[in-house]
Amino acid sequence: MPAQVRVFAPGSIGNLGPGLDILGLAVGGVGDEVIAERHGSVGVIIADPGHPSLPTDAAAHTSGIASSEVLRRAGAGFGVRLVVRKGLPLSGGQGGSAASAVAGALATNLLLDRPLPSSALVLAALEAEAVVAGRHADNIVATLLGGLVLIRSMDPPDLVRLPVPASLRIVLAHPDRSLNTREGRAVLPAAVPLEVALHQAAQVGAIVAAAHSGDLELLGRAIDDRIAEPARGPLLAGFIEAKQAAMAAGALGCSISGSGPTAFALARDDRSAARIAAAMAAAYGGLGVRCSTRIATPDHLGARAL
Amino acid sequence: MPAQVRVFAPGSIGNLGPGLDILGLAVGGVGDEVIAERHGSVGVIIADPGHPSLPTDAAAHTSGIASSEVLRRAGAGFGVRLVVRKGLPLSGGQGGSAASAVAGALATNLLLDRPLPSSALVLAALEAEAVVAGRHADNIVATLLGGLVLIRSMDPPDLVRLPVPASLRIVLAHPDRSLNTREGRAVLPAAVPLEVALHQAAQVGAIVAAAHSGDLELLGRAIDDRIAEPARGPLLAGFIEAKQAAMAAGALGCSISGSGPTAFALARDDRSAARIAAAMAAAYGGLGVRCSTRIATPDHLGARAL
Repeated sequence: MPAQVRVFAPGSIGNLGPGLDILGLAVGGVGDEVIAERHGSVGVIIADPGHPSLPTDAAAHTSGIASSEVLRRAGAGFGVRLVVRKGLPLSGGQGGSAASAVAGALATNLLLDRPLPSSALVLAALEAEAVVAGRHADNIVATLLGGLVLIRSMDPPDLVRLPVPASLRIVLAHPDRSLNTREGRAVLPAAVPLEVALHQAAQVGAIVAAAHSGDLELLGRAIDDRIAEPARGPLLAGFIEAKQAAMAAGALGCSISGSGPTAFALARDDRSAARIAAAMAAAYGGLGVRCSTRIATPDHLGARAL
Repeated sequence: MPAQVRVFAPGSIGNLGPGLDILGLAVGGVGDEVIAERHGSVGVIIADPGHPSLPTDAAAHTSGIASSEVLRRAGAGFGVRLVVRKGLPLSGGQGGSAASAVAGALATNLLLDRPLPSSALVLAALEAEAVVAGRHADNIVATLLGGLVLIRSMDPPDLVRLPVPASLRIVLAHPDRSLNTREGRAVLPAAVPLEVALHQAAQVGAIVAAAHSGDLELLGRAIDDRIAEPARGPLLAGFIEAKQAAMAAGALGCSISGSGPTAFALARDDRSAARIAAAMAAAYGGLGVRCSTRIATPDHLGARAL
């Protein structure tokens, strides 16, 4: 058993447009890190929560909750001390809470010499998301496994890892506003008209087909979310204008990352992505909303020890 | 321009479980045929409707409606005389109305030297389905293109043809009851709970993934329809028992074909398919419902001139 492990977990786009709660895409570059060490007393101690706004109470920090859940499921006889380093924004819609949860779960599992399979780590991280952000696993499975992941079912976890076209580029535009994930979930409708449900299912099917066939145009056309985006878009100042700007600049598709406020656009190459990023920043800026952008490739590896 | 053409269109499974109105699978073996000849006066004449219960009025027969629509869209200067040979059961849930419509549309387009693209033939056949069976295109696209087809959108048609695993076998169990497609559509809910919509979308995504990866077990698990089957199943005497029998006999998945009354089961090979067919027939028989079964492979070619 190692005495200390250090785990990186990438950010992710939840939903990926129409895939509310069932499709997640891991995004390369920025992520969260967790350094975990064994300690003698039972339970989890958060030595550093990673951000002044995050709790040091392990029962309130996603990394601590997920770590505790792994210890419990594994029947571990010792405790864990966690140091969290946040690379992802808080309440940004870039999968930060899931990344911290998955990094905490994986680091703890590695300290224990991997007693738990991936599906149990998903469930451990889900307990953490349920406490802080509402019960959804799309960010968790993407950040854990990497790439594009479809959740067929969570009871038990039935996860389908999909290929991601190599040339795909992702533009993330993060406006200087915050939308709590819980608020973003509260505005979702309790029921949807049948034709909306069928349209949404067809888009999810088309995303999966496009992932397999490498048809980026089809992937873009399928980023057509008629459930979450219509509910959340009006809450996100500048999103509608930024989306219009992204599409006019050649984006394959554009929607809200998770419950926002980050917007994402898909691009066919680096040049196109740069044009789209500039157009989105200008659209937010024109409305007085400060916005940072970055261009990324998918993360194909998922959470890993460093 | 040929003076006469003869077209075959295969049967099909609408929905393929969770893919209500958006997934269709063409089934080999039985189908409908249309023989079309030019004649001098404008319009469509049904010389033989193919079955004593079918109308000879071209405006009420799917083959006639679709043929008329092709003539109209192509601006043809002559009329067409149609002879229909029904291989598929009436109101059986095996895509018979769509097969006659597609065969009529394709035969007419061939008589005219192919002025219309496939998407226009889909729309012509859709006019026919709308008149007799409710506006849905899943059977149409499967019988026209062959194989497994996802409808991303119908406005305009955006059709995604998916690979079908070579070893897949299809069991069709046709009980001696009839359920009109219109009745089968009338019982569908106008709205569905959000979690049902998301689950259904995940199943459609998983079917597409399984088609691409050849994972027959995943394909079977994804035949989990929580919208149409719960509404239609209770109307179909013996279906629930036949499904239980199919699954117990090793079916990968089982659901209602289109709006029924035919039930379909998916099997991994011929031996398994034979066991499943026998089990389903016995289950219907035990309830006093006569039932015919057949075992088929997917039809990969779709509608074609003979």
